Amino acid sequence: MARAKAPVRDWTRRRTAKRERLAAVRPFASGRIVDAARTGDAVQALLRPGDRVVLEGDNQKQADFLAEALAACDPDVVHDLHLLIASISLPEHLDVFEHGVARRLDFAYAGPQSVRMAQLLADGTVEVGAIHTYVELYARMFVDLIPDVALLCAEQADRDGNLYTGANTEDTPTIAEATAFSDGVTVVQVNELVDRVPRVDIPGDWVDLIVESPRPFALEPLFTRDPRHIGQVEILMAMLAIRGIYERHAVTTLNHGIGFDTAAVELLLPTYGEELGLRGKICRHWTLNPHPTLIPAIESGWVESVHCFGGEPGMERYVAARPDVFFTGPDGSLRSNRVLCQLAGQYAVDLFIGSSLQIDADANSSTVTEGRLTGFGGAPNMGHDPHGRRHASPAWLGLRAGEPSALRGRKLVAQITQTFRAGGVPAFVETLDAVQVGTDAGMPVPPVMIYGDDVSHLVTEEGVAYLYKAAGPAERREAVAAIAGATPVGRDADERRVEALRRDGLVALPEDLGVDIRRARRSLLAARSIEDLVAWSGGLYDPPARFRSW
Amino acid sequence: MARAKAPVRDWTRRRTAKRERLAAVRPFASGRIVDAARTGDAVQALLRPGDRVVLEGDNQKQADFLAEALAACDPDVVHDLHLLIASISLPEHLDVFEHGVARRLDFAYAGPQSVRMAQLLADGTVEVGAIHTYVELYARMFVDLIPDVALLCAEQADRDGNLYTGANTEDTPTIAEATAFSDGVTVVQVNELVDRVPRVDIPGDWVDLIVESPRPFALEPLFTRDPRHIGQVEILMAMLAIRGIYERHAVTTLNHGIGFDTAAVELLLPTYGEELGLRGKICRHWTLNPHPTLIPAIESGWVESVHCFGGEPGMERYVAARPDVFFTGPDGSLRSNRVLCQLAGQYAVDLFIGSSLQIDADANSSTVTEGRLTGFGGAPNMGHDPHGRRHASPAWLGLRAGEPSALRGRKLVAQITQTFRAGGVPAFVETLDAVQVGTDAGMPVPPVMIYGDDVSHLVTEEGVAYLYKAAGPAERREAVAAIAGATPVGRDADERRVEALRRDGLVALPEDLGVDIRRARRSLLAARSIEDLVAWSGGLYDPPARFRSW
Repeated sequence: MARAKAPVRDWTRRRTAKRERLAAVRPFASGRIVDAARTGDAVQALLRPGDRVVLEGDNQKQADFLAEALAACDPDVVHDLHLLIASISLPEHLDVFEHGVARRLDFAYAGPQSVRMAQLLADGTVEVGAIHTYVELYARMFVDLIPDVALLCAEQADRDGNLYTGANTEDTPTIAEATAFSDGVTVVQVNELVDRVPRVDIPGDWVDLIVESPRPFALEPLFTRDPRHIGQVEILMAMLAIRGIYERHAVTTLNHGIGFDTAAVELLLPTYGEELGLRGKICRHWTLNPHPTLIPAIESGWVESVHCFGGEPGMERYVAARPDVFFTGPDGSLRSNRVLCQLAGQYAVDLFIGSSLQIDADANSSTVTEGRLTGFGGAPNMGHDPHGRRHASPAWLGLRAGEPSALRGRKLVAQITQTFRAGGVPAFVETLDAVQVGTDAGMPVPPVMIYGDDVSHLVTEEGVAYLYKAAGPAERREAVAAIAGATPVGRDADERRVEALRRDGLVALPEDLGVDIRRARRSLLAARSIEDLVAWSGGLYDPPARFRSW
Repeated sequence: MARAKAPVRDWTRRRTAKRERLAAVRPFASGRIVDAARTGDAVQALLRPGDRVVLEGDNQKQADFLAEALAACDPDVVHDLHLLIASISLPEHLDVFEHGVARRLDFAYAGPQSVRMAQLLADGTVEVGAIHTYVELYARMFVDLIPDVALLCAEQADRDGNLYTGANTEDTPTIAEATAFSDGVTVVQVNELVDRVPRVDIPGDWVDLIVESPRPFALEPLFTRDPRHIGQVEILMAMLAIRGIYERHAVTTLNHGIGFDTAAVELLLPTYGEELGLRGKICRHWTLNPHPTLIPAIESGWVESVHCFGGEPGMERYVAARPDVFFTGPDGSLRSNRVLCQLAGQYAVDLFIGSSLQIDADANSSTVTEGRLTGFGGAPNMGHDPHGRRHASPAWLGLRAGEPSALRGRKLVAQITQTFRAGGVPAFVETLDAVQVGTDAGMPVPPVMIYGDDVSHLVTEEGVAYLYKAAGPAERREAVAAIAGATPVGRDADERRVEALRRDGLVALPEDLGVDIRRARRSLLAARSIEDLVAWSGGLYDPPARFRSW
């Protein structure tokens, strides 16, 4: 045989390292349970310079107590860490770099910390591997960014390490799986140690260390939109979207991004949608977080199912009382799961619709605006046509194209935006700010959120552009311009070409869709305030304090 | 407020139905444990006409005992079931339809049963919803195909329902999650009931009923390829792939499909790859099942990590002894997970390369050949460029294209095939058989496995075509034809155009890549037999009986 002499090799180095790490933590723990007062010592004892460390910073929940412990490590002992974190949202996430504990960063989103992030990058304090979407970052934890240590969070744990995540399951099972099965060390901060968890979201033998945090983990109500702030323009756009996209394509499975534009759609279903006789014909199956603005549609019998990426503070009792609609455990509370909801959104859902801050003439869009290195979150995964899909649905087939031998349908990817943002800033621009931000940050390609050639529909207050029908980039640009209003992209639109595009079905104005602009009033909203949502919920929705005005 | 009068509604119908179903099974069970002799009665008592039932039929493991029980149900009692099953591989899977128990089917793959499947479809005995890829089918279980009952399988369970899957975790956690958190009923056949499972792969409170099967679940060694059957042509193609794709693009993260072509690549790494000085530069991180033909590369220090969709019989002891490379639990055995490995393959991996049975002039390819409605499996998910990816790598960036404002990289999607299959059947054809099969089966679009415009590289024994460089469909066809040999697609290739394509870098012949055809001999394989693989493994690989010839 051709066997070369194989080098002698130890194949259990990670297992040995894990044993040594856990031994080093022993003085600060009793079995699996770390003494909360010694959390800093335990984290420091666990880590080795250069370690690849996941810090759970999800879209919503944050392992904030462990983040503080990490930031407080002695940089003479723990340094050059490679931090993996989905969402950079707490000051501690960047303190870790300023204090010299970590050096390299792979992340997905940096909303509240985006300005400081850009600064630290410019200073060379942070060395960025790449900016990912959430699921890309998790995907790499199984390939080339396998964690040495994961710092996670959950609601409760029992003494065997079984974890209860409650409604915000989010990303904990995925990160725990990547770490536990690669002989990494999983450390979890929990709000409460209990004798028996109400249900097991993550099995105890995946968990090495637990610390009972002195305060509950941080959690933001990111998906709550107060209907009070929905104005006539959002309502008009929602009417256009319902008639021009949902009804026309018979969209039964869908995902909504965050924002007032799609919240308006949710609040028009029980009124405008009902008038149009669309209940049961559209919007039956959803993948999205438990948006409070979806309550009226649920209560009116529009919604058969909702699978969630994460939870939403205040929606706990409502969700628990609607188990036929939401995915809940035997304990009654939501089980969310970002990776599975992303999978569902990508492969089982016909429409993604989301708001954008900037759109260029080619329909490329981005929420990255000047100076802010925000990253991507999950929109790019939802906002593209997955070429790996093979099952058909009426909505998907309605956009079919290609040679007969390779005919295929297409996912509906819609962008919705007013032509001008607050303060008269045009939403349609010649060049996305993202291009300059990308250049400044030394990114190899510009941080575009959704590529123009993936966008099938564009909605503004002017009308709907059916970009999927465009014969090529030139015609796509014409269709974008036709509904871009008086922005730099729209103001030179040729009126006769717009008429031709209407005739050819590439552009529809409100009158083409039978939408009466005069009806775009707040009285058409099923709920006009948070208080209304509480009433719709039969008192089951508990809005966070900041949303209570009564 | 605008609240419409909401209809009075029961929001806990699924929970009530679950309680009733479990009550009906009580006579045949003691707590969670079903009396194996009464499995048929239990399954029949559990089901209601019209139920949506998942039967675990994964790519590899099969809940065969429960499949028999299902097929034996009385069709007067249980009928019109809607069956969801990933892989139709056992006769019982179709008996269920012939016996009148089930009517509707959503599935992903029908390898061994594909001929009978096509027949039952033509007879109207089976009503097909759609043919999916694996992950699409799972995705829909969270959206519009939420299961009422799931019939699953695992290695072991304890009396609290905690499941141990061993190496073939595959799809059980995903299906269990979809079912358990939607108030569906999960029933699991296990090979063994134990007091304590070696590790918990699925928590007990996700599991309703357990039956100890009288025999272990069926499991096929689908990913084992005997090096004895690798000939000079496969070796030549592997050399071309290594030099023309892996080395040229510095591919460090990858997925291999099943087949002798890619097995040859695996077996050339420690020999030809070593000579070229490529160790550490290519093929470091893998997403694929534990292929026995990867053993020599692992032993020679090429492979840093492997994450797996499923397991492979015979590889258990070897994998357990190489925990630094494979994802294993504290019990030592593999933890696989199809959904997470697919996620990794889609978003973290730079190259997919797989064999195809037929390729047309536009590079569309399919393994569906006449009369066989095989379906898709997982290749389409791996074999496309995910537009939702946002992080860069050298390999991905090497294929970048687009306007500067929307510049992006691209996944390498390679197809590898000889120009003629066994028996002189051309692999390159004017029209894929899939087109006719799709028409005959009434499919809305032809069942193409991988679309031509997603294929970046094509390898035959003639050379490599760099299709991603083609300026358009016409040039892509020329590049395909240039390496399609004497097939209907290749025989009219214009020699002068081929020269031009070589000059422009769209086509590379062996001499262009520095590949010496004379070296394409079996002596270049690191292992030339299953026995060699056992030796490489230090006796840790236990090949299934059918692969043992000594």
